[in-house]
Amino acid sequence: MGAHVTSGHVFIAASLDGYIARPDGGLDWLLSYDDGGDDRGYAAFIAGVDVIVMGRGTFETVLSFDPWPYDLPVLVLSSTMGGSDVPDRLQGRVAVANLTPAGAMAHLAQAGHKRAYVDGGRLVQAFLAAGLIEDMIVTRAPVLLGTGRPLFGGLPQDVPLTHLGTKAYPSGLVQSHYLVTTG
Amino acid sequence: MGAHVTSGHVFIAASLDGYIARPDGGLDWLLSYDDGGDDRGYAAFIAGVDVIVMGRGTFETVLSFDPWPYDLPVLVLSSTMGGSDVPDRLQGRVAVANLTPAGAMAHLAQAGHKRAYVDGGRLVQAFLAAGLIEDMIVTRAPVLLGTGRPLFGGLPQDVPLTHLGTKAYPSGLVQSHYLVTTG
Repeated sequence: MGAHVTSGHVFIAASLDGYIARPDGGLDWLLSYDDGGDDRGYAAFIAGVDVIVMGRGTFETVLSFDPWPYDLPVLVLSSTMGGSDVPDRLQGRVAVANLTPAGAMAHLAQAGHKRAYVDGGRLVQAFLAAGLIEDMIVTRAPVLLGTGRPLFGGLPQDVPLTHLGTKAYPSGLVQSHYLVTTG
Repeated sequence: MGAHVTSGHVFIAASLDGYIARPDGGLDWLLSYDDGGDDRGYAAFIAGVDVIVMGRGTFETVLSFDPWPYDLPVLVLSSTMGGSDVPDRLQGRVAVANLTPAGAMAHLAQAGHKRAYVDGGRLVQAFLAAGLIEDMIVTRAPVLLGTGRPLFGGLPQDVPLTHLGTKAYPSGLVQSHYLVTTG
C-alpha cells in the first residue's frame, strides 16, 4: 500500500429484510419514520468524509431530490454514463468515471481524498467484495418489503465484522455500527 | 376465526446479510459467538410457547444435534416426509403433516395449542406471507456470508412491524424484538 490511501465508509438504511429501495428505486417506505428532527447521526457521518462515491442507480435517485443534497464532491462510477449526463447545475460538483472499486479509490487518493462515503446497494456490494470498506452504519427500518434493491450481495468469502454499537430510535429504526475486520 | 386460535412466534438468528444457514445448512459461522453462557433469551422464549412447527430442512438440521433439544411437541410440515421418516427415538414427540400454514395452525388449535414457535427460513417466510406470525425475535450475527438460506422471502404486500426493543450482546450479536402489525 502507498503512503496515502482513501478509506471507504457506509451509511445506509434498509428494511428488516435487507432492501434499500423498492424495485423501481422508491423510498416511500423509508420516509415515514420520524424521530422528531433527529438526523440519526447523518450530519456527524458526513462531517467525517470528504468525498462521495455512488453508482448510476443511486445518482439517478438523488437527482430527483431538490435541492441537490451534497456539499461534498461526488464521483459517480458508471460504465454507461459520461460527463455530459451530469446536469449543468452540477458540473464541477459531480464527476463520472468508469473505474473499478480499486481504481476509484486510487483515483480519489491521488486527488487527496482521505475518507469516501460509498453509497448505493450495488456499489456497497462491490466495495465490500473488494475489501475496500472500513466501517458501516446500517439503519434498519421496521418493515418487510419482500422485494427490492438489496443492500448486500455475493462475496468471495465471509466478511467478519466487529459490532461497535447499536442505537434504537423512537420511530423503530435500529442503527448498528460495524467495523469490517478483514483478516 | 374460532374462539381458539394458535399464534405464531419466531426466534431466529441470521447473518447481517440475512442468511440463517450456509447453502448446505451449516451453522459454523453462528456457533462462534460466546456471551459467557447467556442464552440470549432462548429459555424465556421457549417457556412462552407450547409447540414447535418447522419444515423439513430445519428438522434435518436439528436431527443432527445430540441430544434432541426440545421438550415440546414438534410438528414438521412437509409434503415429502411421512411419519416413518421420524426416528424411533422421537416417535410420539415429532409428528409430520402435509399442511398449509393456515391448516397447520387450525390443526394445532384443535389440539389445544396456544402459542407456536415457528422455526426455519422457508416456514417463517410462508407463515409471514399468510399473516400468521405475531412477533419475531431476530438476532443478527456480525458477519456477511454472501450466500446461504435466506431468513426472509417474497411477500404479497409490505409487512409493517413495531419495534419493541433491541439488545446488543458482548459477542456482537444484536437482538431485536418486533411485533407484526397486520392491518
